This record gives sequence, structure tokens and C-alpha cells, in this order.
Amino acid sequence: MTTPKRPSVLATQEADFPRWYQDVLEKAELADNGPVRGTMVIRPYAYGLWERMQAEVDARIKAAGAENVYLPLFIPQSYLQREAEHVEGFSPELAVVTHAGGKELTEPVVVRPTSETLFGELMAKWVQSHRDLPMLLNQWANVVRWEMRPRVFLRTTEFLWQEGHTAHATRQDATEYTLRIHLDVYRDFLENVLAIPVLVGAKTKRERFAGAINTMTCEAMMGDGKALQMATSHELGQNFAKAFNITYTDSAGQVQHCWTTSWGSSTRMVGGLIMAHGDDAGLRVPPRVAAVQAVVIAVKDDERTLSTARDLVASLNAAGVRARIDARTEQGFGRRATEWELKGVPLRIEVGPRDLDAGQVTVVRRDTSEKSPLPLGEVVATIPSLLESMHEDMLAAARQRLADRTIEATSVDEALEGAMTGFVRIPWKALGEGGERTLNEQAVTVRCLQTPSGQVPGVEDSADDLIAIVARSY
Amino acid sequence: MTTPKRPSVLATQEADFPRWYQDVLEKAELADNGPVRGTMVIRPYAYGLWERMQAEVDARIKAAGAENVYLPLFIPQSYLQREAEHVEGFSPELAVVTHAGGKELTEPVVVRPTSETLFGELMAKWVQSHRDLPMLLNQWANVVRWEMRPRVFLRTTEFLWQEGHTAHATRQDATEYTLRIHLDVYRDFLENVLAIPVLVGAKTKRERFAGAINTMTCEAMMGDGKALQMATSHELGQNFAKAFNITYTDSAGQVQHCWTTSWGSSTRMVGGLIMAHGDDAGLRVPPRVAAVQAVVIAVKDDERTLSTARDLVASLNAAGVRARIDARTEQGFGRRATEWELKGVPLRIEVGPRDLDAGQVTVVRRDTSEKSPLPLGEVVATIPSLLESMHEDMLAAARQRLADRTIEATSVDEALEGAMTGFVRIPWKALGEGGERTLNEQAVTVRCLQTPSGQVPGVEDSADDLIAIVARSY
Repeated sequence: MTTPKRPSVLATQEADFPRWYQDVLEKAELADNGPVRGTMVIRPYAYGLWERMQAEVDARIKAAGAENVYLPLFIPQSYLQREAEHVEGFSPELAVVTHAGGKELTEPVVVRPTSETLFGELMAKWVQSHRDLPMLLNQWANVVRWEMRPRVFLRTTEFLWQEGHTAHATRQDATEYTLRIHLDVYRDFLENVLAIPVLVGAKTKRERFAGAINTMTCEAMMGDGKALQMATSHELGQNFAKAFNITYTDSAGQVQHCWTTSWGSSTRMVGGLIMAHGDDAGLRVPPRVAAVQAVVIAVKDDERTLSTARDLVASLNAAGVRARIDARTEQGFGRRATEWELKGVPLRIEVGPRDLDAGQVTVVRRDTSEKSPLPLGEVVATIPSLLESMHEDMLAAARQRLADRTIEATSVDEALEGAMTGFVRIPWKALGEGGERTLNEQAVTVRCLQTPSGQVPGVEDSADDLIAIVARSY
Repeated sequence: MTTPKRPSVLATQEADFPRWYQDVLEKAELADNGPVRGTMVIRPYAYGLWERMQAEVDARIKAAGAENVYLPLFIPQSYLQREAEHVEGFSPELAVVTHAGGKELTEPVVVRPTSETLFGELMAKWVQSHRDLPMLLNQWANVVRWEMRPRVFLRTTEFLWQEGHTAHATRQDATEYTLRIHLDVYRDFLENVLAIPVLVGAKTKRERFAGAINTMTCEAMMGDGKALQMATSHELGQNFAKAFNITYTDSAGQVQHCWTTSWGSSTRMVGGLIMAHGDDAGLRVPPRVAAVQAVVIAVKDDERTLSTARDLVASLNAAGVRARIDARTEQGFGRRATEWELKGVPLRIEVGPRDLDAGQVTVVRRDTSEKSPLPLGEVVATIPSLLESMHEDMLAAARQRLADRTIEATSVDEALEGAMTGFVRIPWKALGEGGERTLNEQAVTVRCLQTPSGQVPGVEDSADDLIAIVARSY
């Protein structure tokens, strides 16, 4: 049995992280560029990851009481103009259909950059009485924002996402629901499925969503120390309710404006998964999101090896493990092992004649590269709990890196220097809006504001007590 | 306990079937028109139906070995021009983006009417050797075809669908796979999940997909005797492979063109579900696709009624039945019963004090309106098998209607007359292309050609032996 070599097909992370990312996309057959600038083709292996992400996020959204709907791709241009900040935020990114059905349209239509305005329009119709509230809706869809500097998964002209939109009777109810989504859907999913620890906090005024009174974010650290925004949740106050006339009649018969929220996560998370866990040998997929959790590799094509491998897959499947066989014995073992390593499958179970003579198989963990013999009779009992501890280990390792690469700063200059290699914690009062602008000039941003204990700030928290998390970002 | 009245909110099917359809869409809160002509808003109840349809179709597609991918919404205009028939088929329906990112584009991009051409382009890149074949791909996405006479779910400017695209080494392999998808994915899903019997057959040359050498279809009969095409599967021969240069090197080292296929089903099936099973009281959702299979209605708000209803829901859920409670006792019982009837929930289980005194509940089947007492202790054991037999009964009833409303004809005139009320079977040799044109002038079409025993014709079947199924259609 040969020890798989590190594939020379990838640039190393240290030498060139962006190049490494492009190499992984291509060599692990994750995605291609589409023919129209900035668009992407999501290939089966990456789409399988997205499908599992979607299922996990969707289950949490449904558990939070929201229902799925589907709204049209096309929005009349006039809709976007109703909320002033919103139109300003999106105008430069819009794709506009001017011709359809062989004719020029009398009113051009916009390809949705978000369905915010359509939800506004529809909620105005659907919400009548306080009995209709809260109205909790979500949509899975594609959206289009014309990108000048596209990058597959991270910043694409078209991407897939979910956008939740809710209407509430009171500000408090809207705030509480936004926080619930942010923590119980997004943070829970990111940490407990993707094994990516996130910093939760509020965006500064400068970084807020166009039209929001408060934007909450989940910020993760990538392998190169940069930040990636994984999901955001917005309190829209009554801005959209007033622009779209979303009102309800309260129990006293008075007409009131609703308080609305919106929240989203996208295929950008696939990019985050690659960059948060990947290493020089390729992807490392956390077990809970892996389409294949364990690949059973038949090393040779003798009958005993093949039938043992097949039996193992069947027993593992029966035990709830997503296992599959690799019986491509016409190809070298080393090449196959390297391929599974590149694709980041959590466990390789190698079945070969020599091991079988000793009544065992060899189990290789992708996260640690640990390689150990396991008696054949213990495989089915061991693997499920091994996968569970791998999840915990990957999350703990990512937390450790986050801690190791975060420094404390007290001045703008220190913050700028620290942001070159990782995250910086700096009191907001030492930074302020002036300091934030200085950072921005160097392509460094305030990722979020947190309470000193790392919580999302509430209305009762004074800005003077908050900590700014500062970093370079994707 | 009052007997629910037939809701006066719907037109009757007999008086005005199209109006009845619109009424159901609105009153059962299924869908709205979008602000841009021809687009639709799919509301939570209908989207829940679509989600279950999608899951069932997707599982069958995966079982047939295909993998999901996602391709871009935007296609360069030039791509569509590569396959001559294809561009001719789609040109009048295209939506074109001419401006984006604040500027006029140098090459306008088309919003995909199908991803046929993009799959062609990508497969040319991905397929190299005979070892890459068959390549079996599928995509769930939205597509846009500018519709002059839109109708929610049936014919909309934007709709949701899956489109499968495969490449094969031989014509035989392509033919066999198309048939497998057509029968094991589409027919199986339509009959065994939606309880809608379908006629499978081949389209005539006139009705074929633009660029296909053979189009298979599943045709269902709606409540008014008209046909609805529920899914189609195309053999594309080597037309697309030649236009896009999809080639492979065979085992002898020779470069060969592939044989490709494509196949699709869409949100149109939601419209089919409504029109195939609905009655004057509203929707009738077959149990296997119902998000709520049994609603347990607490008739009064006394504690015994409410706690019995809650316990029943919990026991039914534990037994694998999708059950939910209706405890809105502040609303009249009749009104609630009518609402569930309108939404087509398969079973109503009514829990009220008088029944409970007798140790029973009242079970009402939506499909037959049959109402019967059931001892409380037997509910959990009875309901799962009752739901199963309801599926069989709904399928059998739909088959009976199909048989009752299908006549045999031997001349074009007989066929025209028969098509006014249902389906017509007529030998293709009594019709021919001339007869087909005559039918078309009266808005009657050949839905498909079948062998006399109702099978999809094979290459060995002579057209002279085939039966044409003729009907009006949506």
C-alpha cells in the first residue's frame, strides 16, 4: 500500500491562497466559470454540498416557523424606486430586460437583485389584521447582481440563496425574531453542520444593508486569516412597511405600520466551506455535510477484497453512514487515494489483502491524516462515533485558529497591522467612524460590533462599550 | 355538528371550468399573478405541494443515476444560434438583457428558455473518453419563455422545472435511458404519487421538441376532458452533439459524436394536480403528496376535546402520518371544515364532545366525502392504511374517468367531435399529417402516438400500426 503523495496539482496555501482556491475549484471538479462574465457552473460534487446545506438550513427555517414561497424573477423597475436607500444600494448592479417576446418592452423589467420589494408589495396585500401577524416567509431562488470583480462562489453575477422576509406587529417582536433566525438558523447551522465557528455581531452604519436599521452578521475566518460574511439578518424597522404600505389593523381597530425583517444566506457558503477547512491536499468536508462520509477503497481486485468492501459499505449504510465503494482497481491505489483526499471525503477505509490477512482494515482521517488499523469486526460500531468526533475536532481546530489569529488592538495603526494576518478586536470608541474610514482606505473593514463577551449588541448596549472586529475580507 | 356546505366561493366546474380553476387558485391561497405580465407568485400552500413533488421526482432521478448541477441563468445569444431548429423554436419567446451594471452590454444575453445549449457547450468540455459516458446530469431551475396567453401554473412567462441532459455512446443506450426516465421517473411519480394516470407515447413530428428526433410524453386528462402534457423526454440524436461538438474517443481510439437526450417536468404539474383531482368544493390532494394528510379538528374548546385532539396528532405523527391540529375554536366549525375541504386535505378527523361521549371520532374522506365514526382506540391503526387505500381509490377513479371519456374513432370528423368532450383514439393511418393539420385548425391536437396496447412506440413499430390520441389541451 503506497502512501498517497500530496498532489502537485494545487498551489500551496502559503504561496498563493487565491490560486490555491482556483486550483481546488478546478481539480476537485467543483465549479467552472459560465460563458457570461461573472456567472458560474456548479458541478455535481459542489452541488451535492449545496443540496445538503440547503436541506439543513431549510429544516431550521421551518423549525423557526417560516414557510417557503416563490416570487417572480422579474420586477418592474418602478418597484425598486419606492425605498430610497434601497434603490441607491442596488442601481449599479442591476441587469435589465428591455426586449422580450420579439419586441421592445414598454416598461423595462429588472432581474431581481433580491426580492425585498416584491415581498413588500405582496405583504401589503396579504397582511390585513393583527391575526395575520407575524407573517413568516422564505424563498429559495437565484438572484443577479452585476459584479465587476467576480470570484466563483464568493462574488458572482448570479448566485443561489434563501431570503427570508417577515412582518411583525411590534419592533420588539421583529428584533427577537431576527435574533432567533440569526442564532438558531445561521449560527447553529454554520457551527453544528459546517463546523465553522462564527463571530456574531451587528454591522456598523456604514456596512449596513441598504434600508435596514440594524444588520446582524455571522463572520468566519478563512485559511488565510481573511473574513467571510456567511449570513446576514436585517431589521428593516418600518422603512419598507412605510414605502410599501404594509399595515395591519390592531385589536383596537387602529391601522398600524408593520415592522419587517429580512435575512439571507447563499452559495457563498460553499466558498466559505472550501476556504475555512481546505488544506494543501484539497478540500476537507466536515462529516455532517459530506455527501460521502466514508469511501471504502478496494485496494486490489481479488474477490475477498471486493466482497469485504461491498459488505462494509452495506453495513455502514445500514448504520446510517453515507458510505460508498471505490472499486476502480484498474487505476493505481495512490492516485485514487489522492483523488478522495482532494475531494475532502472525511474517512478513507482501505481494504487490501495484507490487512485482511490480519483481520483488519486501515482507516485514514482526512482532517488529521491520522492512519490507523481497525479490526474488521469493529468498523461498523466505530465509524459513526468517529465521524461525530471528527466534527467536534474540526470545529475545535477552527476555533483554535480563530483565537490564535485574533489580536487585541487599541489604535487604528495597530488594527491595520493586525488585519494583515488575521482578525483584530478593538474598542469601537478607539476607532469611531473616522477610524473606520481610515481602515477602509486600506481595504480593511469593521466586520461587526460585539459586546465584550462576544454577543450581538442589543438596543440597551452603548456603542462606547462595544468591540469592533476588524479584518480584511472577501 | 353541522354538515359543511359546499362553498359558494367557487364557480362550479360544469358551469365554467377555467373560472373554477382561477377561483381555486385564489380561494385556496395557491397562487397570485406577479406584477410582470405572465409571471406568478407561488404561495406557501402550493409551494409546499411543489416541494414534495420535487423531492419525489428528485429521488427517482437520483435512483436513475443522474446527478444535479446548476448552470447560469444567462446565455450568450450566439449559443442559441448553433442548433438551427432549436433557435427557430425559441426565438419568439426569449427575454433579452441588454443593459447591466449601468451600461449597455456589447453582446446581449438571453435569459434561459432551457439550458439545452449550455449543457451542450459544457458536455463538449466534460466528455472526452468512452469512460466518461454515459454522462447523466439534471438541473432544478427557473426558466423564462415570454408567453402571450399566460395562465398560472399551466403557461407562465417564468416557471420552475427540472431539465435532465445526458450523453451516451450509442443510440440504443440513449433510447433506453430516455425510456427509463420516462417510465420510472415520470410515469411512476405521476401515477404512484400524484394518483394521475397518464398515457405514454411519442409526439408526432409536428409536435416534437425543436431539435429532437423523438419526443416522449405523459398525457393526463383534466376534469374537463382536456389533456395536459405533464412531462416530456427527448432523444436528440446526434443533432446537438454535432452542433456543440460533443465527442468521445471510443475504445479503439476513434473520435465519435455522442447521442444526447433531455427530459423535463415543471410547476405545470401543480396545475395538473389541481385540474385532475379538484371538484366543486376545491382541491383534492392525493395523500402521498399532501403536506397535511389528516387534519384533526377540535370542534369545541373544552379541555377533553383539545387534549384528545392533541394526543391524536402526536400519535398519528409517531405513526408516520403528516397530521396537524385545527384548534381555532373561536371560528365556527363549518367554516373551518369548508376551508380544509377547499385546501383538499385528504382526511378530516373531527373530535367533539358528543362523539367522545360515545368513545369515537368522525372521519371524513375528502375524495369520496364519506363520513364515518371510528372508535378512538382504532384511529392510529386505521389511518395509515386508509390513506394508502385513498391513493389507490383516487388513481382508480381517475383511470375510470379516462376510460369513460375516451372514444374510438375512425375518421377525422369523428375525432373532432369526440375531442369536444374527452380523448379520442384513432389509427394514425386514418389521420395522417393531413388529418393532423385539419385537427389543429380546430385547436385539437394529436397528444401522442401509442402502440395498440398503449406502449411508447419503438423504432421497430410501423406508423401504420400506431394509435393517435387526440384531444383539446392546455
